[in-house]
Amino acid sequence: MQFSKRSYVLPASPIRKLEPYLEEALSRGVKVYPLHIGQPDVETPKGYFEALKAYNGKVLSYGRSQGELKLIDKIVEYYNNIKIPLERKDVLITNGGSEALHYAMLIVCDPGDEVIIPEPFYPSYAAFIASALGNIVPITTKAEDGFHLPAKDEIAKLITSRTKAILISNPGNPTGIVYSREELESLADIAIQNNLIIIADEVYREFVYMDSPYTSLGHIDRIRDRVVIVDSISKRYSACGARIGCLVSKNEEFMSLALKYCQSRGCPPLLEQLGAAALYDTPISYIRKVNKEYRERRDILFEGLKSIPGVICKQPDGAFYIMAKLPVLDAEKFVIWMLQDFALDDETISAAPGEGFYATPGLGKSEIRMSYALQKEDLKKAVRILAEALSVYPG
Amino acid sequence: MQFSKRSYVLPASPIRKLEPYLEEALSRGVKVYPLHIGQPDVETPKGYFEALKAYNGKVLSYGRSQGELKLIDKIVEYYNNIKIPLERKDVLITNGGSEALHYAMLIVCDPGDEVIIPEPFYPSYAAFIASALGNIVPITTKAEDGFHLPAKDEIAKLITSRTKAILISNPGNPTGIVYSREELESLADIAIQNNLIIIADEVYREFVYMDSPYTSLGHIDRIRDRVVIVDSISKRYSACGARIGCLVSKNEEFMSLALKYCQSRGCPPLLEQLGAAALYDTPISYIRKVNKEYRERRDILFEGLKSIPGVICKQPDGAFYIMAKLPVLDAEKFVIWMLQDFALDDETISAAPGEGFYATPGLGKSEIRMSYALQKEDLKKAVRILAEALSVYPG
Repeated sequence: MQFSKRSYVLPASPIRKLEPYLEEALSRGVKVYPLHIGQPDVETPKGYFEALKAYNGKVLSYGRSQGELKLIDKIVEYYNNIKIPLERKDVLITNGGSEALHYAMLIVCDPGDEVIIPEPFYPSYAAFIASALGNIVPITTKAEDGFHLPAKDEIAKLITSRTKAILISNPGNPTGIVYSREELESLADIAIQNNLIIIADEVYREFVYMDSPYTSLGHIDRIRDRVVIVDSISKRYSACGARIGCLVSKNEEFMSLALKYCQSRGCPPLLEQLGAAALYDTPISYIRKVNKEYRERRDILFEGLKSIPGVICKQPDGAFYIMAKLPVLDAEKFVIWMLQDFALDDETISAAPGEGFYATPGLGKSEIRMSYALQKEDLKKAVRILAEALSVYPG
Repeated sequence: MQFSKRSYVLPASPIRKLEPYLEEALSRGVKVYPLHIGQPDVETPKGYFEALKAYNGKVLSYGRSQGELKLIDKIVEYYNNIKIPLERKDVLITNGGSEALHYAMLIVCDPGDEVIIPEPFYPSYAAFIASALGNIVPITTKAEDGFHLPAKDEIAKLITSRTKAILISNPGNPTGIVYSREELESLADIAIQNNLIIIADEVYREFVYMDSPYTSLGHIDRIRDRVVIVDSISKRYSACGARIGCLVSKNEEFMSLALKYCQSRGCPPLLEQLGAAALYDTPISYIRKVNKEYRERRDILFEGLKSIPGVICKQPDGAFYIMAKLPVLDAEKFVIWMLQDFALDDETISAAPGEGFYATPGLGKSEIRMSYALQKEDLKKAVRILAEALSVYPG
């Protein structure tokens, strides 16, 4: 049998694909620090679990395709507080930010259409675009430039008659970039001049470690009908397992098309939405405490990596990842070797090989993405393990 | 801005699209019996809620992309008990049966590829196929033939070089058809002769009201590598709001492609999977009791509809819907009229207009799908309301 071409093109997740090696290492009794995945170890606010426990319905019934009003109202309030005015109709609840991104790509791309994305990027973008039969046109960004965007003219050169959208992650996974107001205004210019949609994956919005204010694409009023924001409770409230995200847009046509996709799958999970609604009542002090903690973790991992000979990386300003270039030819082989053949005091680390974060062939082969969503002591150990592994790696 | 063609083609759900009229009627204080949606009012087994409450983790973390092993093991055991031998690798947990169907269509269809489906069919099939840029080739079935399939030769005539799959719902939504072993063997012959996949949506498997045994496509051993079963806890355990379903297949290539889609969206919701795992421990007496209840409901709705002049329908053998032809030209207008302008003692009903259940233009315009997932007394009232509405309808 021959299956669809898109399904063969669709990349396996570089974040998930080494998990069998990790599971095998664990089964041998090796302790593995999981730096491959952005899984916060911060406690989920108790309100989440309390809301689930408080549910006393007898029948776990379908909810609304748009999502539960209780949650939508909380999200509208949240956005109004950060000066992005919304109404209920501007929000659709999704199965995580992932479903929001998948639907956005299906809505944007006819086969052969192009989406401009700064690389390195979150690898699932490539899967969602492959699913929609679109093509990625990468803007290559580099650690030595702080992963900032090139000048507007350089980006404009990438536009073709097939360009439909620009997709950015801000703060950026995997780079930790936080785009400046000027960079976002340049993207806004390009979007207006070329009649494009901009999709902004802002799930790491609370994880910014600079003193200057964070600018969301939703803050640029002149493109309010061109912006689709993808959001999620996963990172903000350390609730990745809930799978609750949303699509936010003032573009009514986009939202009416998105609603049809949402109707086709019934509704998002009901109880998880009640839990999510409760999370939006979490005091701001929780977010501040988490932000401070992550800033300290970032410093530990970044300073640690800088001290390892041959490792090149840039201090991230947001999110909780570092994209690091290692003194190895093939970072995937190196990570597999760390899981299969290496241990320091019966401990090792996992990381995500960098190649899957790029669309340009050949880039990222020596790189890994490391998450610092781990305890500080664990991050210190992880750095020691990586340094030792690099010093004895035979590859 | 121009969005993708598939998004405009994608049909709005005929089940969901009248909900604004329903909400408006409710806001006027009218009681509406919701016959438009397959939302069981049977209690969800308490084990579900207990499993959620028993969760004492501090961090709601990502799960496995394949789904939690605890749930997969329960599903494997369930299938082994119904004589469909499976291993863990043959099961992928999905966000409801819907995500399973969406992924299956994305895996099966290149643009322009064809999927053969008996019509009337569950309307989301059309959305998932539109999303994949495939085309539906309908096998038209009729109430007067009991919605049974035509002879094998007739179906074989529909095969073209673009045919990739046959998709059936068994028991059938919206028809209540339960396919005979002979019908399934005919489909198996066609699949083998033409190198096709058969996707069997069997989410209503426990809702069969005949005395003869139910045959799953998974029971036909000679096509074991050609069958993909879509399953869900939604109807079986009255847990539609959990959004837990699965893909089941012995076709290793299909499953390896499906895993990439599953990886791209992270994982299904974690706690809902723990609840779902507990549901599989529900005693068989629950299923038997529910089955008996639904059989009685079916009898009430079917006998009631038969007694209304001009209404044509067939006694369903499974699922919990009746597809009924009404003595009106445009059933959608009639349903909207019932919600907007009609009430009997301040009560009315909603139903799903039939046209969206067909791919052949013009079919189903006089039909509605009614769900009998309601209390018997409510169904009796619904029949009275429908009879009265038809007798005074000015349309």
